[in-house]
Amino acid sequence: MNHDTICALATANGTGALGIIRISGPEAFIVADRCFQGKKLAKAASHTVHYGFIKDGDEVIDEVMVTVFRAPKTFTTEDSVEISFHGSPHIAKKILEVLTANGARMAKAGEFTMRAFMNGRIDLSQAEAIADMIASENEASRKVAMNQLKGGITHEISNLRGDLLNFTSLVELELDFAEEDVEFADRTALRMLVDRIEEKLTSLIDSFQYGNAIKNGVDVAIIGKPNAGKSTLLNALLKEERAIVSEIAGTTRDTIEEILHIRGTAFRFIDTAGIRETTDAIEAIGVQKAKEKIASARILLYLYDEFDNRPEEVISFVKEFYRDDLKIVLLHNKIDLSGSPESAFDQQLRRELFPQFASTLLAISARDKTGIEELKSELISYVEGLKQEENNVIITNQRHYEALNKSLASVRRVREAISQSFHTELLAYELRYALEYLGEISGEFTNDEVLGNIFSKFCIGK
Amino acid sequence: MNHDTICALATANGTGALGIIRISGPEAFIVADRCFQGKKLAKAASHTVHYGFIKDGDEVIDEVMVTVFRAPKTFTTEDSVEISFHGSPHIAKKILEVLTANGARMAKAGEFTMRAFMNGRIDLSQAEAIADMIASENEASRKVAMNQLKGGITHEISNLRGDLLNFTSLVELELDFAEEDVEFADRTALRMLVDRIEEKLTSLIDSFQYGNAIKNGVDVAIIGKPNAGKSTLLNALLKEERAIVSEIAGTTRDTIEEILHIRGTAFRFIDTAGIRETTDAIEAIGVQKAKEKIASARILLYLYDEFDNRPEEVISFVKEFYRDDLKIVLLHNKIDLSGSPESAFDQQLRRELFPQFASTLLAISARDKTGIEELKSELISYVEGLKQEENNVIITNQRHYEALNKSLASVRRVREAISQSFHTELLAYELRYALEYLGEISGEFTNDEVLGNIFSKFCIGK
Repeated sequence: MNHDTICALATANGTGALGIIRISGPEAFIVADRCFQGKKLAKAASHTVHYGFIKDGDEVIDEVMVTVFRAPKTFTTEDSVEISFHGSPHIAKKILEVLTANGARMAKAGEFTMRAFMNGRIDLSQAEAIADMIASENEASRKVAMNQLKGGITHEISNLRGDLLNFTSLVELELDFAEEDVEFADRTALRMLVDRIEEKLTSLIDSFQYGNAIKNGVDVAIIGKPNAGKSTLLNALLKEERAIVSEIAGTTRDTIEEILHIRGTAFRFIDTAGIRETTDAIEAIGVQKAKEKIASARILLYLYDEFDNRPEEVISFVKEFYRDDLKIVLLHNKIDLSGSPESAFDQQLRRELFPQFASTLLAISARDKTGIEELKSELISYVEGLKQEENNVIITNQRHYEALNKSLASVRRVREAISQSFHTELLAYELRYALEYLGEISGEFTNDEVLGNIFSKFCIGK
Repeated sequence: MNHDTICALATANGTGALGIIRISGPEAFIVADRCFQGKKLAKAASHTVHYGFIKDGDEVIDEVMVTVFRAPKTFTTEDSVEISFHGSPHIAKKILEVLTANGARMAKAGEFTMRAFMNGRIDLSQAEAIADMIASENEASRKVAMNQLKGGITHEISNLRGDLLNFTSLVELELDFAEEDVEFADRTALRMLVDRIEEKLTSLIDSFQYGNAIKNGVDVAIIGKPNAGKSTLLNALLKEERAIVSEIAGTTRDTIEEILHIRGTAFRFIDTAGIRETTDAIEAIGVQKAKEKIASARILLYLYDEFDNRPEEVISFVKEFYRDDLKIVLLHNKIDLSGSPESAFDQQLRRELFPQFASTLLAISARDKTGIEELKSELISYVEGLKQEENNVIITNQRHYEALNKSLASVRRVREAISQSFHTELLAYELRYALEYLGEISGEFTNDEVLGNIFSKFCIGK
């Protein structure tokens, strides 16, 4: 697949001072020299920039700067050229026409990065990290992507996988001497290695909850009676932060989302149109329906006050909504009216709900913006609480998460095979599986379908 | 003003594989080195590219490629650095924050190009050509801008201006010897030079009609009775070309424009909502009102047929609409019904309107798309007809047009001064004025207000 030369616009679509078109492949210099009037690029030193003109026959298309990158020290490891032109979309189109008429072809989505991977310059998780860098919208997601780009997850796993590979070779060697009943692979040492791998995998898997929150944000549901102050609370949260408030017509459910960024993490107040009326809706459509609506939420803000609620009612609904992956925050609203930050009402809730169903109760006044800072700290502390102290590498990618889980299951089968003293052949078989799953993350083991799926999500030009 | 170091995003806003941030100024390398982990840029050769990381203190912001451009062979003639990063708007923002925290400041609109002009690398008309290149949306406008960028107009004028400057020096020398009544400047030779300048200026001024049509498109009005087939005609034109049809809510009159690109020139069917009803409207609001509506049009398509019109009526209205800068095309529609491509009706129109009021009559059927190609050729031939055979440089810029007209007026005053044998002092005075106006185009004579006005229309980063 890498025997042809590809080209594409690498910068964002639209008008800018500059645009960059990238060419990569064995004929990159030949194609570029056919279109470029200036220094002969085939003879230029690597990593040097040259002034000249892109020409279509005799006609000058644009005045450009061209950078030469010689294989193998390039992004794709192939000969590459970057053309910096006056950033009009029309000129970009013209230059691409000239390049394709002179031997290059238009690159497919992600094809440059795919070549970087196929040619061994980066592993698969790094390729994915490049896409994550480009898509990063806040500091938290940029940091995680940058860490991944530096090879974070692969580094964590590859040493352990190397050790496991050594053991596997020894076990397979035993098979060659099956009749002699020798044991080249020390089973105790192998079990210790398996323990270490299992520990590492578990820690990485556990980091996904945090990584996912960082990358994709956290869904928050607000529940309360119609006059409980839900929209007042939301406004207080959004305004105080001077946050990027956006209305996104999302998903098939036609939900309306409002997004609040706190310290680089996005909190999405999901399906508020429906959910804010949930307590009302409970009577109409039942708790089951309401629970379905907040299925994706990780935090539930339960808003009540002493005027419109009774403790029994709150206790009953909170117990209904309880899930072990849902943080329930009780918000005693309207304390500007009741004047009692910790009432008998609250004490009753604490007695009956803490610590099993809820662990936080805040007295607030959405109207006066009392307690809003505390609530925001509570939201952030939820995300911080997901962070694993012992692990610096954070999984944010669903594919990695799934590959890690499969690896963990296969490693556990290896341990089973050791502890149950399974036949060597079966142990070797399980070891091979474990190696394969561990290799999926970095792309050492993969298939075209998986790769196609990953790179098709890239933009053209990357 | 050029003692500080500026930075800005140079590529289009939005997400792309790459983004470029540009730094220029005396401290470009110092600022970049403070933020870049990799080769020491202050020691790097010009026009070389270096791999590394942008860091904010200890934290890696992004993996980047950095290009070093050493003064004076750079776009601004100053030390410059370009940072190529993973094209996320968030990362762009972060890098700019780091650069500004380390001694650069955010560039104003057009500030890089303004420095290139102020430092003498390009003249003012070339600076304007850069903006035109970036804004070019079709081949015609790109070609004109590219020609300008190569110094077209300045080249045309500067030699003549140089000769005029020599004469002016001689005339001023005469002033020093006023009592001796000597004549250093040969008046006959001066008059010949003035003739040559006048001819060149006239030719450039004449090219503006064509240049303006190329750059800004041509307004076309279609007039006819309500059932004359105006929208059928428009649809036939637009569909046949598979053109970019757009509806733009333009100007204060709330006009609706439909745009048809033919061979790189945009034809705008202006105010069609109003104008298509004009014949009707003539009775209601009068011809004067209709004429105001088509004031900006350069082509009028007058649609009639043998069923709903009488020759006298057409003749009378065409004479009313006639302007010497308006090309009137008579369109005999519905020949699919009448079956007579050249009728007595047409002959009467030709007799009474040609060549003074109109010069083209086409038989068409908007419904059958008969004669549509001929009509398009007619539209194109109008634009081609504006082209000046003898002049390759085309003026597209309103400012140049005005400066050329002022130059022409001042040169004519010089000739007047020569032929009327005005006092040498007055001649010198007129010569100085002519030199100044001629210098306005290239920016040799200019002022801050003019410059501010020109560069403020650039985008940030250019």
